[in-house]
Amino acid sequence: MSIVVVGFLAYDTVETQNGKVEEVMGGGASYFALAARFFSPVSIVSVVGNDYRPEHWRMFTDRGIDMRGVVRLEGMTTRWHGRYHEDMNKRDTVQLSLNVLEGFTPELLPDQRRADYIYLAPNDPDLHEHILDQVSSPKLVIADLYDYWIDTTRAGLEKVIKRVDIMLCSDAEARLLTGEHNLVKAGRAILAMGPGTVLIKRGEYGVLQFSKEGMFAVPAYPLEEVIDPTGAGDTFAGGMMGFLARNGRVNESTLRTAVVYGSVVASYAVEDFSLRRLETLTWEAIDNRYRAFIELTDSHHSRWISR
Amino acid sequence: MSIVVVGFLAYDTVETQNGKVEEVMGGGASYFALAARFFSPVSIVSVVGNDYRPEHWRMFTDRGIDMRGVVRLEGMTTRWHGRYHEDMNKRDTVQLSLNVLEGFTPELLPDQRRADYIYLAPNDPDLHEHILDQVSSPKLVIADLYDYWIDTTRAGLEKVIKRVDIMLCSDAEARLLTGEHNLVKAGRAILAMGPGTVLIKRGEYGVLQFSKEGMFAVPAYPLEEVIDPTGAGDTFAGGMMGFLARNGRVNESTLRTAVVYGSVVASYAVEDFSLRRLETLTWEAIDNRYRAFIELTDSHHSRWISR
Repeated sequence: MSIVVVGFLAYDTVETQNGKVEEVMGGGASYFALAARFFSPVSIVSVVGNDYRPEHWRMFTDRGIDMRGVVRLEGMTTRWHGRYHEDMNKRDTVQLSLNVLEGFTPELLPDQRRADYIYLAPNDPDLHEHILDQVSSPKLVIADLYDYWIDTTRAGLEKVIKRVDIMLCSDAEARLLTGEHNLVKAGRAILAMGPGTVLIKRGEYGVLQFSKEGMFAVPAYPLEEVIDPTGAGDTFAGGMMGFLARNGRVNESTLRTAVVYGSVVASYAVEDFSLRRLETLTWEAIDNRYRAFIELTDSHHSRWISR
Repeated sequence: MSIVVVGFLAYDTVETQNGKVEEVMGGGASYFALAARFFSPVSIVSVVGNDYRPEHWRMFTDRGIDMRGVVRLEGMTTRWHGRYHEDMNKRDTVQLSLNVLEGFTPELLPDQRRADYIYLAPNDPDLHEHILDQVSSPKLVIADLYDYWIDTTRAGLEKVIKRVDIMLCSDAEARLLTGEHNLVKAGRAILAMGPGTVLIKRGEYGVLQFSKEGMFAVPAYPLEEVIDPTGAGDTFAGGMMGFLARNGRVNESTLRTAVVYGSVVASYAVEDFSLRRLETLTWEAIDNRYRAFIELTDSHHSRWISR
């Protein structure tokens, strides 16, 4: 089943302990789409400026990603400049220039309005609302939270959260949104706001999933070297939603496996700057690390529980 | 099989966001023994002052813990005063008074020297060395690191690490010991120092296990309320080593299950101040949470890997 992702396409400047890259491809929609395409057809709804380079556009279309929903406007593509601390769970935004995104309102194509799977990358809740008003009867809506909007448009945010099936947020955002420092309390508090499932992303510490059926906890895949964590969250969402769309069933069981697939693809994304590793990634590599991930987290308990 | 634990018995003063307790039972050996006893006989090697209260001594003996190796000396029992940050992974030591421990050299009883399972709670590496010189041919030696000794007696520490089968340390200690910020690199660097297995404890984020056979990652059991994290590491070690001693085999498979049991017992320890929760804990409660833990971490992958 086809997935529609609404989010940024941008040019990023990124600084980590491992170096600096300038004017590289970025934006949540690009990470999401490059991850989801391994599992399911995916189409992007976004906007770029007339400086967006043809080879970057082709990078998506060459990989089967539907770009009909990407509008080109006069002006500059969105720019983001981020700098990571030595502890890569922390980063500062040096500069964000929305450029063509300023005042832009995304509209879905007729076939996108009938899509079953909708991913709303971090954005203004009013835009999320506007997208949800356009889709007829989606099977699954996933939205990612961005802390900026918690402070500025709380009411709008709460309206969107009610309409979402799976809410994604970081541990810091979960705390900010609920006022609960304890993540179990925070997760349950967000559940009470409407979504059937809440996924709290803890960076290198993995993911906590909350639903009516209970909790699921997975570590992140431990890497010897993280080059650039940018886009890890959107990549995770892409792998996860991709698996769910391919499987066609959304329940506690498929969700758990989806979280592992999301974690696997995200673990590749951070191995190089920008989209580089995702561009060359193969299904075989995903499948290999998926198996390694299962072995990594296998407690061999079955031998000891006999009752 | 019987376990010998060498470590502190102390009176603690502890401050957390949830309150303050004064002059309560503490010390690594007490947490370890109260956890290990559910799985295996355990005897403590330690020292207390003549202020150590009879009802506290009886708390151990009533639960079948062998106290013959605990020496009573004239003077005060060791005192520790700690204060936790709101982020309970961080704490400050307000005061540590070694008292009777000052200059004390632990000696094992004849039957303890033949023990198969030895746990060395955080202490001076020279004392660890002295204990290891007394045991004839232990099957398994586990030692826990204490960051203080990384700076002060590095050479002695490295000698002990060579003689240990399983090395336990916190993430911060692993980084300090190896100079590697990345935990995968740090874990492998400690492995190269001698022990067959390295367990890096990440507090509320769980445990990373490194061995020649590979990596194992488990989250901590997510709790709605952590009252007092004191002793969580020693409780974890007690549950883990207890399971290994009861099972009698030490291999990658039993180690993984042991880590889960350790995590389960530790998750109870932090639910109340001091040893309170461990004193009343039952095997049924451990078994229930063990099953909940397995469900918590089950990715339901078996349905999707068919090849």
